[in-house]
Formats: sequence, C-alpha cells, structure tokens
Amino acid sequence: MSLITTVGVDADDTLWHCESLFRLTHQRFVQLLADFGDEERINSQLAAAEKRNLRVYGYGAKGFTLSMIETALDLTDGAVSTRVIREILAVGREMLTEPVEPLPGVEKALGELSKRYRLILITKGDLLHQEQKLAASGLGDLFAAVEIVSEKDAGTYRRVFERYGTGAEQGLMAGNSMRSDILPALEAGAWGALIPYPLVWAHEAAEAPQNHPRYVELASIAELPAFVDHVSKPLLP
Amino acid sequence: MSLITTVGVDADDTLWHCESLFRLTHQRFVQLLADFGDEERINSQLAAAEKRNLRVYGYGAKGFTLSMIETALDLTDGAVSTRVIREILAVGREMLTEPVEPLPGVEKALGELSKRYRLILITKGDLLHQEQKLAASGLGDLFAAVEIVSEKDAGTYRRVFERYGTGAEQGLMAGNSMRSDILPALEAGAWGALIPYPLVWAHEAAEAPQNHPRYVELASIAELPAFVDHVSKPLLP
Repeated sequence: MSLITTVGVDADDTLWHCESLFRLTHQRFVQLLADFGDEERINSQLAAAEKRNLRVYGYGAKGFTLSMIETALDLTDGAVSTRVIREILAVGREMLTEPVEPLPGVEKALGELSKRYRLILITKGDLLHQEQKLAASGLGDLFAAVEIVSEKDAGTYRRVFERYGTGAEQGLMAGNSMRSDILPALEAGAWGALIPYPLVWAHEAAEAPQNHPRYVELASIAELPAFVDHVSKPLLP
Repeated sequence: MSLITTVGVDADDTLWHCESLFRLTHQRFVQLLADFGDEERINSQLAAAEKRNLRVYGYGAKGFTLSMIETALDLTDGAVSTRVIREILAVGREMLTEPVEPLPGVEKALGELSKRYRLILITKGDLLHQEQKLAASGLGDLFAAVEIVSEKDAGTYRRVFERYGTGAEQGLMAGNSMRSDILPALEAGAWGALIPYPLVWAHEAAEAPQNHPRYVELASIAELPAFVDHVSKPLLP
C-alpha cells in the first residue's frame, strides 16, 4: 500500500510569483502617496487596512485594491486627488491581468508527480483570478482537481483530501506558507512540505514545527517528487 | 430507478434577496452623483462598466464596488469628491455585510428535498461572501455540497453533477436565472426548473426555451419538491 496517494500544491508563490507583485504594488502605492507620509507610515496603514478588511473582503487582489483606496482616503484625510484614486484602480487591475509564468522547476516537478499521485491545486484568493492564472500558466491539465478556498485550515485539508484522495493521512501538502499550507495540513493528519519563497506576506508567517515526523523543508519544488516517493514507498524488504 | 438523484439550487435571488440589494445600491449611487448626471445616464454608465469589467473582476460585490468607483471618476471627469468615493466604499461594504434572510418557503422546500435527493448549492460571486451568506442563512446543513463557481456554463453543470451526483442526466437545476441556471443545465443534459424572482439583472436575462421536455417554470420554490418527485418517480404501474 502506498503511504501517499494525493499531493496538494499551493499556487501563489509556490507555482508562480505573487508576493513580489504585491510588494511592487505596495511600492507604487507609496510613491503615489509620497506627499502625505513616509514609506513606513504608508505601508503600516495599508497593512492595517488589509488585516482589518480580511474578514469582509477575504484574500485576493480585488479586496487589496479596495484596501488601498480606503488607506489613501484615510491617510490624506480625504485630500488625495482623484488622479491617484484612478492610478490605484489601474495598479489593482494590473495585478489581475499580470502575465503568469511558472517558477523554475515547477512544470517538471508537477509532471513527475502527476504520473504517480493525484495532484490537487489548493489555493486562496479571488475565484476568477486564480482560475485565470492557472489557465495562463498552462499547468491546468496536470491537476486532477482544483480547490479555490476562502481559508486554509485543518478542516479544509481534511475535506479536500477526503473528497479527491483517500483521506488526509495519505495526503501531503506542499507550499510556501507555514501558516496556511503546512501547520493546518499537519493538524489534519497529512504531511507538510515547505517550499520556501524569498518573500513571505506578514500575515502568512509562523514558526516552523519542531521535530514533527510528517514535516519537511525542501530547498525547491524540484525536490518534491523524490521526497514524496521516499515517504510513499519506504525502503523496506 | 430514480430519474433524478441530485438537485442543484442557485443561491442569490433563489434562496435569498440579492438583486434588490444591488438595485438599492444603484439608487444610492445615483443619488451620490446626482450633481453630475441624470439617473439614466449614471445607470447606463455603471452598467457598461460592470459589463466591461466582468472579464477581469468576475461576479460579486467587490468587483461591483470597483466598477462604481471607476464610473464615478469617469462620469465626473475626476471632479467627484473623495467624500463620495468614501461613501461608495461604505455602500460596497454594506453589501458584503448585509444580513441574509431566506426567502419565503425556502427552508421548508430545501428540507423536503434534502431528505430524498442530494442537494447541491451552485452559485457565482465572491467566494468568501457566498460562504458567509450561506452560513448566515442557516441553510448550510441541508446541502450535501457547495460549489461556488466563476461561471455557470454547460461544462460547469456536467462537472458538478458528475462529481456530486450520478451525472447531469439525473440532475435538476433550479434557479431564477434563465441564462445561468436553466439554459446551460439543459444543454448539459439536466432538467431545469425556473423559479422567477421579480427582478432580473440585465446580464442574466434570456429567452425561455420553447417546448423543451426537461424545462419547467414554477410559481415558487414551494412547488419544487413536488415537481422533482413527479419527474423522478413517474406514475407508472
């Protein structure tokens, strides 16, 4: 019996760049409002608005755009020009239409995994935008299923590995976020493989588990197929 | 053998009010911009922006809010006050946090259906917002599955009835939108039961099929359980 039947994979910053685009947008936002505050103040107000609005807007570029507009109004006490509001709409729109390029090694790794395991994309964010990014990436055919979810908690992983696989105990989740991809997957009973990305959104940061038997940190996604094979087929006689 | 095993149900304007809230928001938008144009002009520009942005923003209140802001900037050539922009953000937010009340007869009808069929919620819109509305409605436990999709086409219905039921041929879709709930479900091979709502978003309007053997228009959702029973178990000896 194979120990792992189903491999869940995160999308943003695991298969393609995302946080770097958010950071770039942050920088453009800071430039647009440079007359009204320094970088630190602008960034901290925007981060506070994002966090405050997460409960209502959820994850993704549309809610982020609305938070940028709100922050521009708050920060300038309404003195921001409509030209700047228009620019914010434009940068938000660019985030939604930015071309998508798979990160190095992604296609090869997913290609190998898809031959031996049920491969499931599990991601947060705007529904339509995530579907469009997947379509643009050209990776869609490698996945047996795609789950775009509003939150990644242990219940999410239990449900997804149950629906598309053979339960969380025979599932492995790979992604760049300790908080969303790894800890809740481990809690659900699945394996967790961290694939670090140079940038981590503050909201997603969390401590690594200590000596957890089902946790591993890999250097890159290129190592994932061999790791899953290793876990899945123990070298016993 | 039962002819129908699985019943798909639309959410907005089938289970609870939605378009009426959009109309109310349209009215408030018209009032906010009354200095810059008459109702007809404002509404038609907003409708054009919604349509133009659908491809990028998808369905739901967040994209609608961004379209309202864009329209306010366009319509006033940038002369709109930031007070009005702030009001638009607030009305958009209210749409996302509005209390949800099931329409009359919904709980009873779904309660009956859920005993005899696999009941699936199939809806478009913002992922988090639709989940929150379902939770607030108290109807969540009646559904065997919930599918929040970015578009409702024949492929969507084939996939959902395949995944959660026994295929589209043994599925029935009920909802208020001819364009999204009925025509593509019929195309997929399922039955379609239109449950009219007094208001229909222009984007969702479409002609009724003529003499289609698997189409019915019901007076209200209260008639749905008896109709499905009737289709499902023909009165033959």
